Amino acid sequence: MKIAVDVMSGENEPEVLIKGALQAVDESDVEIILVGDEGRIYSELKKHKDKGNQVSVVHSSEVILMNETPAKACRKKPDASVMVASQLVAKKKADGFFSPGNTGATITASLLNIKRVQGVSRPAIAIMVPTAKGHTLLLDAGANVDSTPKNIVQFAIMGDVFMKHIVGVNEPKVALLNIGEEDKKGNELSLKAYELLKTVDFNFVGNIEGHDVYEGNVDVIVCDGFIGNIVLKLSEGLGDVMMRLIKNEIIRNFSSRFGAFMARGAFRNVKNRLSAETYGGAPLLGINGCAIVGHGNTGAIATKNGIHTAVKMVKANINQLIKENTKRFMEDAE
Amino acid sequence: MKIAVDVMSGENEPEVLIKGALQAVDESDVEIILVGDEGRIYSELKKHKDKGNQVSVVHSSEVILMNETPAKACRKKPDASVMVASQLVAKKKADGFFSPGNTGATITASLLNIKRVQGVSRPAIAIMVPTAKGHTLLLDAGANVDSTPKNIVQFAIMGDVFMKHIVGVNEPKVALLNIGEEDKKGNELSLKAYELLKTVDFNFVGNIEGHDVYEGNVDVIVCDGFIGNIVLKLSEGLGDVMMRLIKNEIIRNFSSRFGAFMARGAFRNVKNRLSAETYGGAPLLGINGCAIVGHGNTGAIATKNGIHTAVKMVKANINQLIKENTKRFMEDAE
Repeated sequence: MKIAVDVMSGENEPEVLIKGALQAVDESDVEIILVGDEGRIYSELKKHKDKGNQVSVVHSSEVILMNETPAKACRKKPDASVMVASQLVAKKKADGFFSPGNTGATITASLLNIKRVQGVSRPAIAIMVPTAKGHTLLLDAGANVDSTPKNIVQFAIMGDVFMKHIVGVNEPKVALLNIGEEDKKGNELSLKAYELLKTVDFNFVGNIEGHDVYEGNVDVIVCDGFIGNIVLKLSEGLGDVMMRLIKNEIIRNFSSRFGAFMARGAFRNVKNRLSAETYGGAPLLGINGCAIVGHGNTGAIATKNGIHTAVKMVKANINQLIKENTKRFMEDAE
Repeated sequence: MKIAVDVMSGENEPEVLIKGALQAVDESDVEIILVGDEGRIYSELKKHKDKGNQVSVVHSSEVILMNETPAKACRKKPDASVMVASQLVAKKKADGFFSPGNTGATITASLLNIKRVQGVSRPAIAIMVPTAKGHTLLLDAGANVDSTPKNIVQFAIMGDVFMKHIVGVNEPKVALLNIGEEDKKGNELSLKAYELLKTVDFNFVGNIEGHDVYEGNVDVIVCDGFIGNIVLKLSEGLGDVMMRLIKNEIIRNFSSRFGAFMARGAFRNVKNRLSAETYGGAPLLGINGCAIVGHGNTGAIATKNGIHTAVKMVKANINQLIKENTKRFMEDAE
């Protein structure tokens, strides 16, 4: 099992991601291909115990930056780390890849080099959202805008497979993110998607509203990528602002830092609980290979966990299941 | 200045809303028309000091419940409190009305009885979102789905007028909620809305993303009502879950309730700061009268503040300004 790791495209130094990748090697029999500036990679590797043939390096001379336009950047920089990593998967030299970079570039490179699973119209970013009770998979988190009802159904099929076979949930509860619980609520897309979702043979539990997302009563939430992207970024922003406000209040209330000191552990724990690091990144489901999209500020732990998630996906042969279920269910939905 | 108050449609008892309305009378020269079950209203009024002709009562025999379908309920219950209150505005017996009930019913009753401001295609719910720096007006918060680019521009015009003339912000910064900051990002609606917003002569500052909403760097955020509704409900839900998690952590960390006790004041302050009570409700902008949509659990303070907001809107003659600006700006945007 080989996973390629783009160590160049994140906001953190490559050394941080290399450390995370080496931890994954220590914890399992995964083989890692570090993709990026080989000078920097080798000089970091020298500082660690030799991992034998579990670690190899593939050089790439370019990096796609966070603010670059994905399609243009992938065209202009064929030797960018994310392009090289995805090509390793396309050429079967790796079973999957992880990139912490420009999300759009990771999607574009995957579509360009690895292509889609047969029957899947559009791949989707699937994010594990931490909730009051555990985790819920939300997709699409931003790979697509202006999705069709059929796209939404395919997202649901892929999410169902992921929760069943990677997370181990029996009969995952699948819900549609909407602006009312009743079946006649919503916009044109959600009304049509609801009707289609009802016809598919999985555990569709109906609509949920915004205030239900973090309660954790369902396992899979599907929505268009425009909505999913706003949900995720809004949550990050609101979480940050709330933490700041509560800290300030605690400091102010006790005219000293004592209260903040006391609460610090609590904040850290909640922050960890709400962080995306547990799964290390978001799988791009529907790609005929395995691609994990890390957060821009992916650290060592997220890199390690992203690699473990990729390994699980490949071992479960998730794409075969997605292909079969898409074929079977989309016939129901025709 | 007369404001009709639907005291029946909320989740709280009418007595709670009556108390809030009477507080508004104590604080200003507003005249209040209490709409609802006159038996209950008179028996509550007896418990308070007589307010002379500043308080009157109009009986209504029906109530539209939270879970009723708005259009059907308004047809079936012509004597519902929200219908009667909106008719008082339509017949110029009141200058505005406040309802804590079924949001859809308040919108439907307003459209049915009061109609729209000339030139405005669709009214919008405008919510004051508490931010790290103050408040930002977000609209549409759920009156419309499948908005057109022109609808979005009209929301922006109405939001601009509200922030200038009711809140007193000079040259409000108007932003479009989108999934990227660059002008070429987004879905079909946001791309087209962006192009139109650029042509209008107000302070359009471009796109903002989900994580910027709570930072408070802009004064008006426009989006389709499907998005706005999810933004608001998601925020409520995430806020609740975070508060619960942090409280639990604090209690757990100190093996006692001491930490929670210490932090209680801080939580209360943050909760108050993030609550919608300051403005008492959300104006439905674009209605040719004044309608304030309260939260379902509107209490006395929110009722009082909702009435004050209505008074301000009527005094500022906000509909005339909306009409003039819509006429002027929509010519730019043709």
